[in-house]
Amino acid sequence: MSQFENVSVIKKANVYFDGKVSSRTVVFNDGTTKTLGFMQPGEFVFDTSKKELMELLGGQWEILLPGESEWKTFTAGESFNVDANVSFKVKVSEFADYCCSYTD
Amino acid sequence: MSQFENVSVIKKANVYFDGKVSSRTVVFNDGTTKTLGFMQPGEFVFDTSKKELMELLGGQWEILLPGESEWKTFTAGESFNVDANVSFKVKVSEFADYCCSYTD
Repeated sequence: MSQFENVSVIKKANVYFDGKVSSRTVVFNDGTTKTLGFMQPGEFVFDTSKKELMELLGGQWEILLPGESEWKTFTAGESFNVDANVSFKVKVSEFADYCCSYTD
Repeated sequence: MSQFENVSVIKKANVYFDGKVSSRTVVFNDGTTKTLGFMQPGEFVFDTSKKELMELLGGQWEILLPGESEWKTFTAGESFNVDANVSFKVKVSEFADYCCSYTD
């Protein structure tokens, strides 16, 4: 699915890490939300409040999942899941274009 | 209007200037499009192919409009128009969250 149809989009971006990470919230008819985000080069720690499915749409990122000691490299089209109430780390060398789905 | 309703959103970002500028395309029922974009610190030159209405949603930018010699500073909520087939310059010190409407 290359586009989301019949959705609402909140105009203003969500801004994190001084703007190095930004995202837009997409609201679906059933009330669920996803965010479409973009990361600059850097290393970022994210704390989850819900289960998340993170899909890399473009660029590249390395991920350190909770409880793991080895970073994993992902390329466009690949995704991973994280539980609620955990932290995970993301390392970006060029940029990362992503979609985050809340799967609770 | 804080959100766009009953629209389609193309998932993949448009990426410019090595990712320092990125945007998402929003498609309306009448076939018109807008982009919701985000700029990192830097100075950027944009060439227009259509008339554009540029609205700053968050952050700050300075704009050098075609044919002008003085930069103008804009804050969130302010907007400006540019003609088709011109160049304009944008200087960003922290970040700029914006909406671009094609007004042809």
